[in-house]
Amino acid sequence: MIANFNYRNPVNIVFGENTLDQLSSYLPKKKILLVYGQGSIKKNGVYDRILAITSDLSMVEFAGIEANPKFETLMKAVELGRKEKVEFILAVGGGSVVDGAKFIAAAIPFEGDEWSILKDNAKVTAAIPLGTVLTLPATGSEMNSGAVISRKSTNEKLYFGTPLCYPVFSIMDITTIESLPLRQKANGVVDAFVHTTEQYMTYPVNAKLHDHFAESILKTLIEEGPRYVNGSFDKEVASNIMFTAMMALNGWLSTGVPTDWSIHSVGHELTAFHGLDHGQSLAVLLPSMYKKMMPEKLEKLVQFAERVWGVTEGSKEQKALKAIELTEAFFNKLGVNTRISNYADGLETTKKAISDRFKDRGWVKLGENGSVTPEVIEDILEMAW
Amino acid sequence: MIANFNYRNPVNIVFGENTLDQLSSYLPKKKILLVYGQGSIKKNGVYDRILAITSDLSMVEFAGIEANPKFETLMKAVELGRKEKVEFILAVGGGSVVDGAKFIAAAIPFEGDEWSILKDNAKVTAAIPLGTVLTLPATGSEMNSGAVISRKSTNEKLYFGTPLCYPVFSIMDITTIESLPLRQKANGVVDAFVHTTEQYMTYPVNAKLHDHFAESILKTLIEEGPRYVNGSFDKEVASNIMFTAMMALNGWLSTGVPTDWSIHSVGHELTAFHGLDHGQSLAVLLPSMYKKMMPEKLEKLVQFAERVWGVTEGSKEQKALKAIELTEAFFNKLGVNTRISNYADGLETTKKAISDRFKDRGWVKLGENGSVTPEVIEDILEMAW
Repeated sequence: MIANFNYRNPVNIVFGENTLDQLSSYLPKKKILLVYGQGSIKKNGVYDRILAITSDLSMVEFAGIEANPKFETLMKAVELGRKEKVEFILAVGGGSVVDGAKFIAAAIPFEGDEWSILKDNAKVTAAIPLGTVLTLPATGSEMNSGAVISRKSTNEKLYFGTPLCYPVFSIMDITTIESLPLRQKANGVVDAFVHTTEQYMTYPVNAKLHDHFAESILKTLIEEGPRYVNGSFDKEVASNIMFTAMMALNGWLSTGVPTDWSIHSVGHELTAFHGLDHGQSLAVLLPSMYKKMMPEKLEKLVQFAERVWGVTEGSKEQKALKAIELTEAFFNKLGVNTRISNYADGLETTKKAISDRFKDRGWVKLGENGSVTPEVIEDILEMAW
Repeated sequence: MIANFNYRNPVNIVFGENTLDQLSSYLPKKKILLVYGQGSIKKNGVYDRILAITSDLSMVEFAGIEANPKFETLMKAVELGRKEKVEFILAVGGGSVVDGAKFIAAAIPFEGDEWSILKDNAKVTAAIPLGTVLTLPATGSEMNSGAVISRKSTNEKLYFGTPLCYPVFSIMDITTIESLPLRQKANGVVDAFVHTTEQYMTYPVNAKLHDHFAESILKTLIEEGPRYVNGSFDKEVASNIMFTAMMALNGWLSTGVPTDWSIHSVGHELTAFHGLDHGQSLAVLLPSMYKKMMPEKLEKLVQFAERVWGVTEGSKEQKALKAIELTEAFFNKLGVNTRISNYADGLETTKKAISDRFKDRGWVKLGENGSVTPEVIEDILEMAW
């Protein structure tokens, strides 16, 4: 049964072709901090379009937010924002920039050690309002209130979230994603796919529409993903992917149902230790996680096999396994290698480092049933190597 | 392709078992106008629960909002609200009460003829904030900003909508729907079903996730509807129906895709002239509308047949027809008769009255292609008689 839940998501989505041109009507007449990444918006023309639109506004810039945004980098933006007394943040980029902007928004008015927002779940009681221009469909950060931030000095990657960090608006202009590199496109599809499975692949609770919605997202990504990760640009396909990635993590799928964010939790460590792209870290772990946890996830794996992949033959276990194989083949078809050894060296040191980290944090019962222990994680890493 | 759209829906959904107990934490400490219907909340205990919760608040009551809420009735509530200077409206009931509350909220501060809000789309620039306690899943009004209001003196039934009328919160407590009459349950399922088809059964635009989501809602209603419209009460089923009816009309399905509200438009006239329940008016019209408009809707009807009803055999036309037959049988299984003659007398006068009305209003091009003319409507009424 659907458990009790609250849902309130006030983000104003401004979706479609050339909706970036409407940006000025959404920006307040206040001191704005423009934050962006490592320069792709200067190459694809988005930066120039924004400067032209905002020329009459008071704006300071902070560039250089990297993939898996770093606390160390973001704190420089926090200092700038405090010094300039910014009143609004405009994030232009993909999920890393948007996540980074959420942290900046929460950290500027925060009193105390800003790292405690991530490390200790310190309560955030105020945040600078922010808006986004999304230039990479993947994380859904444009329509949720969470963020994942890394710390270089300690190789940590941690989550925080607060309703105060819902963007006021998110402009989703498909023309801004035309020049994305294929690797980023592929990672985006994998990310949206695994966001969905993390909110679906648990145990059955008879939340029928939730299941159908999750399967809808997975089917759409399977249908459109290969057409999207392609040298040519198709506006219809891009629209479908941009809409779908947003829907995969705007909160609806997890309302009142169990979730299991184990793949993300372990994946964050692979990124922190070995620098895998976020999408890569998920693609390498999903097959092993679901093979290992098959006894607990069997009913939903069979449902996934039948409804998403159209598997009709075989025992329950055979259907589940077939669906996992088809999913791995799908990731490969997108160009994402699904073996950790393709990206990293040192199985034994990796196993130890990651399982130690979970033990140190006291995260020893991941998974919807609390059975993904550090030992299980070591097995999964070995299976995925 | 998905057309450009804006989506912002700030309703706070408070869903689940006994969430009504949380009501006081959502109510402002202001002068409240409590509005409800014709007494079912006094029989099922909801009224007493609310009075117990709100005993320390300043509240005036307005009872007696009927199904297909009447302008004449609502204007009495508007007068009361003005006299008492109410600052918040709490609507407790089904879609009619919630729709009525939205009109009251918009009309209290309105300067000029309040009927013009409906008749002439007069601009609403202010509204009293409102919250809802939903006691009948059907209309989705708890999570949208629109309302349909009838005028007794002229037999009219018209729509208005404004973002100012999004509820601040909607409490969706499944324990409040336990004692619903089967007829209201069945009507609710039909209503949610036809809300979905009106946003889906047009021409293909390759909005893949939109289509999958619509099909998800239809499948869930087909799976759960008969279990819900049943003498016994199953909490799981009730939760799924309540969640699904909300999702059918909270705005997502129609973002950036064509819609066709013809069945509702003609159905409103059947209700206005002959008093059919809203759900009944939709159930009688859907089969004939889709048979008549099959040439224009063929591709989507085939998709509906294949994906929702699992029809695999036959020509495109045969598949489409089979799906329409299965849908009609589904409505019948819920206990809803699908012939107009079961509810009304006088085919010829009805045809003339309704087609004249559409001509008088200048509504002579309904449908996604503008081809549902008054003459077509007459044919559909005859086919559905």
